[in-house]
Amino acid sequence: MRATIIHAPGDIRVENVPEPTIKAPTDAVIRTVATCVCGSDLWTYRGINPVTQPQSIGHEYVGIVEETGSDVRNVKPGQFVIGSFIASDNTCPNCRAGYQTNCLHRDFPGGCQAEYVRVPLADGTLVATPEQPAQELIPDLLTLSDVMGTGWYAARAAEVGPGSTAVVVGDGAVGLCGVIAAKELGAERIIAMSRHESRQKLALEFGATDIVTERGDEGVARVKEMTDGVGADSVLECVGTQQSMHQALRSTRPGGNVGFVGMPHDVAVDGQELFFSHVGLRGGPAPVRAYLPDLIDRVLGGRIHPGEVFDLTLPLDEVAEGYKAMDERRAIKALLRP
Amino acid sequence: MRATIIHAPGDIRVENVPEPTIKAPTDAVIRTVATCVCGSDLWTYRGINPVTQPQSIGHEYVGIVEETGSDVRNVKPGQFVIGSFIASDNTCPNCRAGYQTNCLHRDFPGGCQAEYVRVPLADGTLVATPEQPAQELIPDLLTLSDVMGTGWYAARAAEVGPGSTAVVVGDGAVGLCGVIAAKELGAERIIAMSRHESRQKLALEFGATDIVTERGDEGVARVKEMTDGVGADSVLECVGTQQSMHQALRSTRPGGNVGFVGMPHDVAVDGQELFFSHVGLRGGPAPVRAYLPDLIDRVLGGRIHPGEVFDLTLPLDEVAEGYKAMDERRAIKALLRP
Repeated sequence: MRATIIHAPGDIRVENVPEPTIKAPTDAVIRTVATCVCGSDLWTYRGINPVTQPQSIGHEYVGIVEETGSDVRNVKPGQFVIGSFIASDNTCPNCRAGYQTNCLHRDFPGGCQAEYVRVPLADGTLVATPEQPAQELIPDLLTLSDVMGTGWYAARAAEVGPGSTAVVVGDGAVGLCGVIAAKELGAERIIAMSRHESRQKLALEFGATDIVTERGDEGVARVKEMTDGVGADSVLECVGTQQSMHQALRSTRPGGNVGFVGMPHDVAVDGQELFFSHVGLRGGPAPVRAYLPDLIDRVLGGRIHPGEVFDLTLPLDEVAEGYKAMDERRAIKALLRP
Repeated sequence: MRATIIHAPGDIRVENVPEPTIKAPTDAVIRTVATCVCGSDLWTYRGINPVTQPQSIGHEYVGIVEETGSDVRNVKPGQFVIGSFIASDNTCPNCRAGYQTNCLHRDFPGGCQAEYVRVPLADGTLVATPEQPAQELIPDLLTLSDVMGTGWYAARAAEVGPGSTAVVVGDGAVGLCGVIAAKELGAERIIAMSRHESRQKLALEFGATDIVTERGDEGVARVKEMTDGVGADSVLECVGTQQSMHQALRSTRPGGNVGFVGMPHDVAVDGQELFFSHVGLRGGPAPVRAYLPDLIDRVLGGRIHPGEVFDLTLPLDEVAEGYKAMDERRAIKALLRP
């Protein structure tokens, strides 16, 4: 089959590799209908995560079940499925608590930018749609595998509720999905921090009520001005830098919450600052599996259209251009069709 | 009047000073019925907070209203009152959100280890009991001014709920009050981390179901063993050191919460560790004002007896011995009678 292999920073190729097979009785193999490039794949592409040998890449996918191991009960060949970027058994104490990305038996359906993918712990990881979805819904459903679920978790961790004011720090695909999530969870005011016109436009379309272009201390001051001088109820931190974390914490009112889903790079939180802020803080790899049934319903019911974050669609063979376009910020997110 | 003055680290004296007077129309002056020494007063006593000139000290108090400013409506002379260690108007957005210690107009009723205390923002800060309380309830009511309210906030910030497992890190007066709070909020299992026999005994009396004597990584391992390998739902961090924060975060299950009320000294939280833990974190100076009505009810109704944390009672004139006994850990907490 054709699969994406990264050989070195910046060196992405599609190559012929053996098709994956069932290794454990809890595995499934799916034929990929669509996959995409994640902001976190760019860390590898940029050499921030080292590449010591050629490796397969990609962790977002929707597809048709091709084959299942003998223990798989919840999905069957021919079904259209969506799965989390981390495989989970969905039965351990952490899964039952709704934190499937901290499953005691977690595993990884790696190498998803390919024609076929082996998904471990298929029963706990995959969710099938009631029937084959319409073609135009494929991009929306694909986002549920990671970015839309991650935006949703950011909003949940930030405890967005009806009537609240939410701020979204970061205007990448996850931040934009965070805007959708904040709206769906009832935020009355949604302030998107963005400097890019195309992203501002999408944020407004997704439900943002205000755009703030300032960053850092100036961004904090703008948010304070807009919120009676106290800060926002909920802030979604969708970047992962020290600056964005500071901005998020300082934009939140005492008693408010920051949900952080940007994987932190060299971020430290000062204990005394957090103490006097009275801000609640929770982050992590989003347990998107927990949200799949609900989010699938919202997509199939036409309530949300997160697939609009894909502003570039390419055949899998042109994956290298997808990475390049995202790296150069010409594209928000690239969808790939095997 | 007689008031406690700290002249230098370790040099605590009772001296004659002018009685406080009404300065603002929102002030009240109260005659102190009981006051006490706080763990945080020891920072000053030990020179960790610098003492550059003689200063009055103490922030916990119950008393009888002596005089009120012309704008005070909610309390009147002769009433028995309890107030927060931070004065708040109880009407600003932060107060309305339940974070009175972050009141936009907050002020400080300082120098409470004295015969009289001036309390700013009296209407927002003081709560009167329905009638003069019985003598034996004075110690219980006094704890509501700080330590019991702080333990309560720790449990609330850690989201202790019915049937949950709570861990209390720190066996000082606040940690012990945290045990009471966890029990009142419905925790089914309460693990107190303590190495001191007298404190272990009090923790058990207050509702702890288990005592763990190990600290650091060993303490974490013990808690994990006791909680299906995943950690506790809620951890109350009542110390404020880097070690205690690590211990608290690592003892909590993914999706669980740490409430931290030990004022952090040189504490930093690593962003990536917090991220992968999925633990929620909230701390701060406890908004004890928010809890006063409820906690007064629980004391007057005989449900809770937090006054038992006072294992030393002294006349105000012997305040120096109170500091010394607490500094040497001979006493958990010293009550002073002016």
